[in-house]
Amino acid sequence: MRVGVIGGGQLARMMIPAAVNLGVELRVFAEDEGMAADLAAAVVGDYRDPDEVLQFAEGVDVITFDHEHVPQLVLRKLVEAGVAVRPGPDALLYAQDKLLMRQKLADLGLPVPVWARVENSFELGEFLAENGGTAVVKAARGGYDGKGVRVVRAAHEADDWFATLAEDANGGALLVEELVDFQRELAQSVARRPSGQILAWPVVESVQRDGVCAEVIAPAPGALGKVADVSSDIAYTIAEKLGVTGVLAVELFETTDERVLVNELAMRPHNSGHWGIEGSTTSQFEQHLRAVLDLPLGATGVREPWSVMINVFGGASGVPMIERYPLTLAEHPTVKVHNYGKEPRPGRKLGHVTATGADLDEVAYEARAMASKFEV
Amino acid sequence: MRVGVIGGGQLARMMIPAAVNLGVELRVFAEDEGMAADLAAAVVGDYRDPDEVLQFAEGVDVITFDHEHVPQLVLRKLVEAGVAVRPGPDALLYAQDKLLMRQKLADLGLPVPVWARVENSFELGEFLAENGGTAVVKAARGGYDGKGVRVVRAAHEADDWFATLAEDANGGALLVEELVDFQRELAQSVARRPSGQILAWPVVESVQRDGVCAEVIAPAPGALGKVADVSSDIAYTIAEKLGVTGVLAVELFETTDERVLVNELAMRPHNSGHWGIEGSTTSQFEQHLRAVLDLPLGATGVREPWSVMINVFGGASGVPMIERYPLTLAEHPTVKVHNYGKEPRPGRKLGHVTATGADLDEVAYEARAMASKFEV
Repeated sequence: MRVGVIGGGQLARMMIPAAVNLGVELRVFAEDEGMAADLAAAVVGDYRDPDEVLQFAEGVDVITFDHEHVPQLVLRKLVEAGVAVRPGPDALLYAQDKLLMRQKLADLGLPVPVWARVENSFELGEFLAENGGTAVVKAARGGYDGKGVRVVRAAHEADDWFATLAEDANGGALLVEELVDFQRELAQSVARRPSGQILAWPVVESVQRDGVCAEVIAPAPGALGKVADVSSDIAYTIAEKLGVTGVLAVELFETTDERVLVNELAMRPHNSGHWGIEGSTTSQFEQHLRAVLDLPLGATGVREPWSVMINVFGGASGVPMIERYPLTLAEHPTVKVHNYGKEPRPGRKLGHVTATGADLDEVAYEARAMASKFEV
Repeated sequence: MRVGVIGGGQLARMMIPAAVNLGVELRVFAEDEGMAADLAAAVVGDYRDPDEVLQFAEGVDVITFDHEHVPQLVLRKLVEAGVAVRPGPDALLYAQDKLLMRQKLADLGLPVPVWARVENSFELGEFLAENGGTAVVKAARGGYDGKGVRVVRAAHEADDWFATLAEDANGGALLVEELVDFQRELAQSVARRPSGQILAWPVVESVQRDGVCAEVIAPAPGALGKVADVSSDIAYTIAEKLGVTGVLAVELFETTDERVLVNELAMRPHNSGHWGIEGSTTSQFEQHLRAVLDLPLGATGVREPWSVMINVFGGASGVPMIERYPLTLAEHPTVKVHNYGKEPRPGRKLGHVTATGADLDEVAYEARAMASKFEV
């Protein structure tokens, strides 16, 4: 069995161990030489070019993704050519376009923040007036890790984005949402096979810094009751109704009045699920491969009571993670390191560490302490 | 950091996930195209050819092994050329030659079966007469998985082997040992860094069938006291006194009169340690990479109370493991599969499965049931 992955980043990289264990051949269509998933790179090309992608697809049994940026045109051509594309273009659309996603989730009756589609500053002003004078404006397409998201308190604060949209031949609009008063962010991942089986991991708590995931605690503390039920119900519904195949990660807000609202969707392994490599019986990378190959899903229980995952970002010194191993590995022998093999740059996600165990305070301390020693 | 591995079998293959996680580049010197470690194969060549191996070594920081068959001549040339060879030739010698191993362990005062070096059937007859009329004869070199081992009850039963030795320009002798009356076999693995740090995993029980490892239970049931202490003490002593670097696996007999005797040594990751991929905080493959790179070793505790590993052998039907996935993965969602990607042949080791959990009976049942469904 051969799985083709479009995109050569760390998510494709972390599929390699899962593929090795399962005896599945992984072929990566990378954007460039020397990327994180270089070891499995079969092709270097432009994923926006239908011909290059079609040719790559000929050598594999199924196509899946490291990111959601492959244009619909390319996805549709793959499907027309009879290629198994998982998730398919109809599902991926909702991970690619936040306006369509919000509309679809609202249509499904799922809990979402108050939102509107706004085409100009006048409409944005109206939304602000109706929602307490503060709002979050999001580009419908292309945003990630906090990019394409802005908190505004006056209608003119998105003028530059409206100006850009006006130049876009496709026209378009921005998504505006209430600034949700949340007590914390959660993430709920599930995997779904084409034949219908869906399985959820425990809901996790995700701590963002500057719009980027910094830390994940699995399971989310104190979320064993209603919050866990609601979260998994939301993710099951989205996976089913949108026909997602592979891993679906749903980012959620837990509000101060104890509601759970859908924030964003990702239809691929997601940073909030990295803890499961050590912490769950089946990691999201193995599960994604099983799901896109329509194989029975693996068990998703926790292997230890608590897992804490901390991202490692490049520090000012530009020192690669590996140079810190003599110190970090010696001081934290129980913590597992995942080094994406990237050139260090300040603020760049270079890897992550995961600690697991029975005592959350101790687990969190170990993981945070080790991660901080990498970021010098 | 680049680690070069000589040999492209499943042990090299299982180093790939560990290398991906640590961000270490793995380059494999494979015997052939399409071997188990094909994904990391950098060179296909003959490991008995010093020039080919020396050239391969130029591109890496350290050389280590998937097997112990690299000739001493080649190993010595690498060392002379300034290559870091881990384990080094002085240590590897004792994993390559069972007579030298027995002599060395006896010199160190370690517990070994009654043994002798025999050059002809007369000497073998003497040993039989002194040891109850039954003995185990072993080729000093080249045996593995039960090959090169024979139980004899009469002096002439090794005549063919003596005849072969007589034709050998190097001369040579056979190792003869008492047939140990053991209640079970154990295996004790440790890892040692060049700078001296040594760390042991729990001692495990290893069940052999037809001289081949079939099943491993970790930790060995009921071996928490004296047996565990003696086993780890033996392995620490061997690692230190022989100057082993990387993983050392010591196969042991637990006799019916409750002594622990050394059976065999392996200076590389070993079948008896596969359970640790899921069952220990640090797998033997990750630990081997850490050790040969002289990095601090990871913690070796168990992640769940019990792990059971069962090897999967090719059955008569020649069906690849992957074709059984719809059945096996559906019925055993908690068991982890390791498929070495080899062409199936009857009796060939194609992979293994590992189950972990709190109840040994349940864990063993799950692992055995899944493995049996692969061997059709």
